[in-house]
Amino acid sequence: MNETGSTPASVVERLFTHARTPQYWLDTPVEDAQLHQLYDWVKWGPTSMNTQPMRLIFVKSESERRRLSECVSPGNVEKVQKAPVVAIVGQDMAFADHLPTVFPHNPNARSYFDGKPDVIASTALRNSSLQGGYLILAARLVGLDCGPISGFNPAAVDAQFWAGTSVRSNFLCCLGHGDPARLNPRNPRHAFETACRIV
Amino acid sequence: MNETGSTPASVVERLFTHARTPQYWLDTPVEDAQLHQLYDWVKWGPTSMNTQPMRLIFVKSESERRRLSECVSPGNVEKVQKAPVVAIVGQDMAFADHLPTVFPHNPNARSYFDGKPDVIASTALRNSSLQGGYLILAARLVGLDCGPISGFNPAAVDAQFWAGTSVRSNFLCCLGHGDPARLNPRNPRHAFETACRIV
Repeated sequence: MNETGSTPASVVERLFTHARTPQYWLDTPVEDAQLHQLYDWVKWGPTSMNTQPMRLIFVKSESERRRLSECVSPGNVEKVQKAPVVAIVGQDMAFADHLPTVFPHNPNARSYFDGKPDVIASTALRNSSLQGGYLILAARLVGLDCGPISGFNPAAVDAQFWAGTSVRSNFLCCLGHGDPARLNPRNPRHAFETACRIV
Repeated sequence: MNETGSTPASVVERLFTHARTPQYWLDTPVEDAQLHQLYDWVKWGPTSMNTQPMRLIFVKSESERRRLSECVSPGNVEKVQKAPVVAIVGQDMAFADHLPTVFPHNPNARSYFDGKPDVIASTALRNSSLQGGYLILAARLVGLDCGPISGFNPAAVDAQFWAGTSVRSNFLCCLGHGDPARLNPRNPRHAFETACRIV
């Protein structure tokens, strides 16, 4: 299992302490191979009953990007137009259909969700967001910057990108290389004493 | 900003490809300093409008552990009794009260949530879960194994641990060193083609 060992300072800086959320993006392209590498790491992150509800559409082409940009808040249009890739992070509300194959040792797993739309909704949102957290950190490990976006019209994105599926939008995430010359000041974080206690 | 550089293979293995969710825990203690280190990394992860809704109670003492074990599903009692630390991951439903200090450049930020309980609930769950994803990976970087748990009674945990606060439980996460001799077989993950597409 895991051993308390040395973590290179550069890794901690890249993932957490020096990482920033860019507002402006350079032209440096993102290769499809990086997106495959990203998912091949992200997929191993734990989810409740191995539900893995996250679904991803990586928007790269100009035509799809234009469609997506029409679904976001005014302040996010330029980001969606300029970021080399915008990931639409979705949540598959039919995740339970996969349980017989992804959670095979418990044949009753699927039935836990039968007729429980509230449990399905919270499980999908909680676990696709957990996976979204893995996605953001894995992208940084691949060498990409991340710009997550909640300011968009989920119904419009669902209609444009997830029509005919059981997937609903959770959030968007720009991926690429941010412009280091155009960063906002870093916002403060809660102190340990505000957010945590040990009992 | 981030540069596509070499990531040590050992880091990728520790965070993703070799990491496992233990069912059984060794006695190796977790030091408070590790929990402080953990939060000092996790806090830098991005959240929507810097809302940072995640709150953490790290349960270490026998008396608190006993109270918590009475709130979990039968299959999770032993895990809560044996893991050196169990983190109760909460979501502060009053996160917007902090926006004037944590999102100071937008004086209207707080008003976005006024009278919108559904937006508050989804923002709290989405972003505290994103932070939960950061927590799990940061714990692995600190050298700890993670055992996230959704099988518990949230109302009971709220009453026992968050009474008199605006925080509600999201999930639990055992932290410590798992027993490498008692791991279940690894469950399969969705292929890229099942979970992702590039458009």
